[in-house]
Amino acid sequence: MRTAMTCAQTLNNPLSSTNPHLLPHKPDPIQLTQEEMKRVAAYRAADMVVSGMVVGLGTGSTAAHFIHRLAELMHKGSLKDIIGIPTSLKTEAHAIKAGIPLSTLNSHPIVDISIDGADEVDPQFNLVKGRGGSLFREKMIEGASRKFVVIVDETKMVACLGGSGLSVPVEIVPFSWKYTLSKIEKLFKDETGFSARLRVDQEKPFETDNGNYIIEMFFEKGVSGDLNEVSDRLLRLTGVIEHGMFLDMATNVVVAKTDGSVIILNK
Amino acid sequence: MRTAMTCAQTLNNPLSSTNPHLLPHKPDPIQLTQEEMKRVAAYRAADMVVSGMVVGLGTGSTAAHFIHRLAELMHKGSLKDIIGIPTSLKTEAHAIKAGIPLSTLNSHPIVDISIDGADEVDPQFNLVKGRGGSLFREKMIEGASRKFVVIVDETKMVACLGGSGLSVPVEIVPFSWKYTLSKIEKLFKDETGFSARLRVDQEKPFETDNGNYIIEMFFEKGVSGDLNEVSDRLLRLTGVIEHGMFLDMATNVVVAKTDGSVIILNK
Repeated sequence: MRTAMTCAQTLNNPLSSTNPHLLPHKPDPIQLTQEEMKRVAAYRAADMVVSGMVVGLGTGSTAAHFIHRLAELMHKGSLKDIIGIPTSLKTEAHAIKAGIPLSTLNSHPIVDISIDGADEVDPQFNLVKGRGGSLFREKMIEGASRKFVVIVDETKMVACLGGSGLSVPVEIVPFSWKYTLSKIEKLFKDETGFSARLRVDQEKPFETDNGNYIIEMFFEKGVSGDLNEVSDRLLRLTGVIEHGMFLDMATNVVVAKTDGSVIILNK
Repeated sequence: MRTAMTCAQTLNNPLSSTNPHLLPHKPDPIQLTQEEMKRVAAYRAADMVVSGMVVGLGTGSTAAHFIHRLAELMHKGSLKDIIGIPTSLKTEAHAIKAGIPLSTLNSHPIVDISIDGADEVDPQFNLVKGRGGSLFREKMIEGASRKFVVIVDETKMVACLGGSGLSVPVEIVPFSWKYTLSKIEKLFKDETGFSARLRVDQEKPFETDNGNYIIEMFFEKGVSGDLNEVSDRLLRLTGVIEHGMFLDMATNVVVAKTDGSVIILNK
């Protein structure tokens, strides 16, 4: 039996100083840009990797900083015998260029640690991921990981998934995509201000690494109800392959703040 | 709330003469071959189509008889203004050759009637379908249908899904398919005699019309437990797109018997 996971509707701020998970680390008075915060979080996460690990390599701008740092530590000799499992073709190309030996889940079905960014993180460590279009491979590889470390800047912390007003992506089979879109709209017809649309790229449907399409869902006030139930209802639609809500998967969240401090939240 | 659907483990024979659904029709003493039975069931189902309908066209040897008959009735003028929605590329080619005007779910999201064969039918009209490899499109189109008529010969009636000992197919994303196979095996590890394997065709993975792979599951004694729950557990696996258990979808089952009689079961 799975626990019901619902949005609290009020932000139980995980960055609050009363949060028992907090491990404040090296505060720095400098005001960082968002890109600098991403880099700070990514570098901190790289410290969690130890020699001999099979490492899931995330996709996106924050994960790119991590891959850069991981390669740097390997070339320095601080890390040895690392095998990377890339979560997208883009990350694969990046990792090859950076000189990280790669493998696949078929050969390495157990991943020691995965490190990736996220579009949103709620107080229970549920995530929205995949705005970059790689949610399927990310979910599969990160779901196969003993430890899944999410690296974000503090702007990604939300009270409810979907609460940032940005999209929650759903990967679908291209066949009869308009029909699948209409079924998704019907599923959320009672959510005020809900809308959904096909992701396009230069006026053509955006294609994932698996050759599928993405529907972007927008929630005016975040996803309401039990998230596990919402997940099941989406997955039951014949056209839906996977969605970008990563429920109960992350084990650690590394949050970089504008003041340069880093907070590590542990489940 | 959905009703739990479990296998009764004993065949509540829907063909029994005490079944209130029975509408016996023109018994014929001749012993029919399986192919003849399929044809008889298909022709009877064609009588359920009326002019002006949007018709889901099934895939497989039994559905092929139906498409042949539908085209015949259209060419005779007995049926007019029929639009077919094919459930596979193979059926599409067949229907085009037979002169049936075609459309898609994108243009016709509501299908009046779908007619298709099945690999197995249980007493609650739950089906196993897709041994022909077209389960995804069949499920989507038949799920969009007001009426879904299943046409079978009596050998397809089973007490439990999977009970025939033949495969229950699952369509999966090709990426990391071995990992997905291992997750499916793990899901059914407590089922005595369960096994699963990739469907191959001339020593290469069989590819569906959507470019995906098929895992064939074998249950020694049929699928046990609540079928809706089994379905959800499969769909929650990241690599799984859809499976061949069609639960609570069929509205009518047309069964042809060896003696040439036809029984129509109505939900």
